[in-house]
Amino acid sequence: MNSTRPQATSQRLKVRRQLAAAAMELFATKGYEATTVDEIAAAAGVARRTFFRHFRSKEEAIFPDHDDTLVRAESVLDAAPAHENPIDTVCRGIKEVMRMYAASPAVSVQRYKLTREVPALREREIASVARYERLFTRYLLGQFDEHSHNGDQPLLAEVAAGAVVTAHNHVLRRWLRADGHGDVERELDHAFAIVRRTFGTLPAIAAAAPAAVASPRGEVLVTVARTDAPLSEVMRTIEEALHQPQR
Amino acid sequence: MNSTRPQATSQRLKVRRQLAAAAMELFATKGYEATTVDEIAAAAGVARRTFFRHFRSKEEAIFPDHDDTLVRAESVLDAAPAHENPIDTVCRGIKEVMRMYAASPAVSVQRYKLTREVPALREREIASVARYERLFTRYLLGQFDEHSHNGDQPLLAEVAAGAVVTAHNHVLRRWLRADGHGDVERELDHAFAIVRRTFGTLPAIAAAAPAAVASPRGEVLVTVARTDAPLSEVMRTIEEALHQPQR
Repeated sequence: MNSTRPQATSQRLKVRRQLAAAAMELFATKGYEATTVDEIAAAAGVARRTFFRHFRSKEEAIFPDHDDTLVRAESVLDAAPAHENPIDTVCRGIKEVMRMYAASPAVSVQRYKLTREVPALREREIASVARYERLFTRYLLGQFDEHSHNGDQPLLAEVAAGAVVTAHNHVLRRWLRADGHGDVERELDHAFAIVRRTFGTLPAIAAAAPAAVASPRGEVLVTVARTDAPLSEVMRTIEEALHQPQR
Repeated sequence: MNSTRPQATSQRLKVRRQLAAAAMELFATKGYEATTVDEIAAAAGVARRTFFRHFRSKEEAIFPDHDDTLVRAESVLDAAPAHENPIDTVCRGIKEVMRMYAASPAVSVQRYKLTREVPALREREIASVARYERLFTRYLLGQFDEHSHNGDQPLLAEVAAGAVVTAHNHVLRRWLRADGHGDVERELDHAFAIVRRTFGTLPAIAAAAPAAVASPRGEVLVTVARTDAPLSEVMRTIEEALHQPQR
């Protein structure tokens, strides 16, 4: 959200990460409650007022990258190809969050353990996640067919954005619990395919997208598509319906 | 979550609500940052240690009813009829939250305004919501067909629970922004019908439920149902698909 120059941004990130590393270290060794902002600043070699230029509170200090990740996610949305399914765009957007965690697995795993132990840190993390959800909700809302006005669009956008974020967090949490082992990107794509199957056929979200549904026990598969839908999209929808994990 | 006797519970609720009213009043007049726990306790006529028997922090004090509402929501799940669609059960569960807000519209609206202005209060509220989501996720997970083991069930349960909670919060927020005016229960049922249409056909969640899908422009409606599905359920699914708001 900052419009600082690249060099200033890089210096800013360096200070934020130093403060974050100091906070993580102190929370882990001394305990969250017993650690003060002054101690975090001192351990990072900066003044108390510098700390408060970067973070509002000590619980914010261990999440130095959410602001920049939010900006990157927004760039992904802004640069989306015109004909991409908006749900897919949002999935690509939140991948920026996963990449941020996956870039430093050890730090991410240690931080996850802290958030599990300290309610204030967990709540801080939950609040960060809510910001991504709001970004994606606004984006999806802007993608509705402008000719189909209906009062349910804000609800649909919020529910669909929430589903993508929930799927992402689910996979992320599983990866963190496994100490950062496993192919998190592949797991994420699998989770997104499930969300895509659930929401991809919502008429208001993807007005021109084909719909396919398999019957519960797999005896029947029914597909409905507009005559002007691209064949590749129809094939993909059928293929996804055939690979529903419940079969 | 407390196993105190009814009388003790009623006394407990009275003190919690006195503290909450005092906190709301002080946050609104003096400002959130400037208000101390000691002042809240004094305004409610109790000792500081009594405050901390009820709330962990001053930001918790304006939400006195979430603990009890969570217990009530859990009771709804525990008492659900055997053949109810689990998504419907969860919708009935979260109605307890809406009722809690709707029971005192003026307080709810004032508190909402505070949460919009004070990030710490908003984060506290978001954290409370997360507790309902976890309850519903666990419930849905327990409702899957025990014979169909698949690794996606935890994800599906979490995404579906999240959708119900998101739909609820969306309607609640709209009602609070309208200063508590409007038929919130009817709005909620409408929102739940949308979620139900989206998730009701997930094979793993409702193995025997019929599925219906309308084509984007409404030229075609296709329904698939098992031969042993109740006719009323099939009719309802078709009716819901025909009333999709996008048509």
